Amino acid sequence: MAKKIAYLGPPGTFTEEAALLYDETAQLIPFPSIPAVAVAVDSGMAEEGVVAIENSIEGSVTDTLDLLIHESRVLIKKELVLPIEHQLLAKPGTEASAVKVIFSIPQALAQCRRFIERCFPKVEVVAALSTAAAVEEMMTSSHPAAAIGSRRAAQIYGAETLAQSIQDQASNVTRFVVLAATDHPQTGFDKTSLCFSFAEDHPGILCSVLQEFAQRDINLAKAESRPSKESLGQYIFLVDLEGHREDPLISEALARVKEKSALFKILGSYPRYGGK
Amino acid sequence: MAKKIAYLGPPGTFTEEAALLYDETAQLIPFPSIPAVAVAVDSGMAEEGVVAIENSIEGSVTDTLDLLIHESRVLIKKELVLPIEHQLLAKPGTEASAVKVIFSIPQALAQCRRFIERCFPKVEVVAALSTAAAVEEMMTSSHPAAAIGSRRAAQIYGAETLAQSIQDQASNVTRFVVLAATDHPQTGFDKTSLCFSFAEDHPGILCSVLQEFAQRDINLAKAESRPSKESLGQYIFLVDLEGHREDPLISEALARVKEKSALFKILGSYPRYGGK
Repeated sequence: MAKKIAYLGPPGTFTEEAALLYDETAQLIPFPSIPAVAVAVDSGMAEEGVVAIENSIEGSVTDTLDLLIHESRVLIKKELVLPIEHQLLAKPGTEASAVKVIFSIPQALAQCRRFIERCFPKVEVVAALSTAAAVEEMMTSSHPAAAIGSRRAAQIYGAETLAQSIQDQASNVTRFVVLAATDHPQTGFDKTSLCFSFAEDHPGILCSVLQEFAQRDINLAKAESRPSKESLGQYIFLVDLEGHREDPLISEALARVKEKSALFKILGSYPRYGGK
Repeated sequence: MAKKIAYLGPPGTFTEEAALLYDETAQLIPFPSIPAVAVAVDSGMAEEGVVAIENSIEGSVTDTLDLLIHESRVLIKKELVLPIEHQLLAKPGTEASAVKVIFSIPQALAQCRRFIERCFPKVEVVAALSTAAAVEEMMTSSHPAAAIGSRRAAQIYGAETLAQSIQDQASNVTRFVVLAATDHPQTGFDKTSLCFSFAEDHPGILCSVLQEFAQRDINLAKAESRPSKESLGQYIFLVDLEGHREDPLISEALARVKEKSALFKILGSYPRYGGK
């Protein structure tokens, strides 16, 4: 029986593209939100889940970070990197000059802002909840409309491509993660994600944690923070470091960081993208 | 002549509420985007601008951070903190049980998710580009609709409040900043925001910068990162520290951090919220 993989739907999203890239033989099951994907994995409805975690221009997908920190037991098993190419899609036969409305998610509209200003200065932009939903709304719109979406959405909804690769910056890539009940065994070219917070705030506390990594020559691939959601000004720090949580030096550093932290959670060790 | 203050419009947004709280005698001018507010200040169309920078649940407003890092010369002159109370608004005379559609921005819909699931399990939620735009769309909708918005939006658009304080978490506050051509003189209870990045990545480099603050007993109020937008995995760090850039110890630490950084930019020193 094919493996079941939950992803952020509907069909035609970039997340579906990432899931297909990861395992094209799996049975892909769309879910309506990022938390729903995690619940599907937590509850056994799917063996794995695919969600976006970071875009090279927009930054982190905070829903995914907050889920991993607060809401779910799932771990990161793998990372995938996909170039994001936005297409301007319309009903077959639509003339570009006739387009009055462009549908998409606010992020995609922002990423194609210069294209829209230059080519469609008078168009009305309308927000949607996903790029796929935008394409669907465009296909049923009574006005001459276009939508910003993926090549895959064009296929699924029978739309025609008016313009391709319309994003303002060429280097637009998204990092996705595969979520599962367990993370990945050591491969020798790994990454570990963790989060921690402190019971009290005093000068140097964050520095003293980062020193545990620095003095063991452990490189940080990423460091950021998220609100604790308890009160303004309280944060949870997220760190991606190079290496596996079972590597001796990393395991030692993690034990020391845990001692210094109020909240401490390993979000998973997994092969670094680009290795072999 | 009244001072001109640019803000993220349309009228009825929480940003307008913050601007009114800051200076109710000013002439408030709505702009359609956060970058447009900064351009208004940069170009002299307005003396000051008000934008949101951080919410206690959602985290940073990345448009504002990216603007301060990359796009604008404006500085932070002041910070304001406003509790966010979402109201469910409808056309006068609408029965709650008749509501079929709820309009709002994705953030507000997310912040009221439990309320919607409990009270309106079958309703269709529709994304809008601002809470004020959501209220406007609701008022002109041909279906029985509601919108999530502010008390001020209800006033402006003549909507009726069906339910108040519907956000899932009581501790929902947003921090706004006042942008201007110059920042604020020392008050003795200040905060300084800065950003920096490194030319090369090696273990301990972030730690060595944070040490410049730690060894001078300078407390960090916030530390986070944003993508450089050049390639995935390159970041710019943002730090809020307690103190003014003209305080001798802070000025010394900033000079040392500047030496270690590729990009280095002070985003402003300003009175800390809650002082006096």
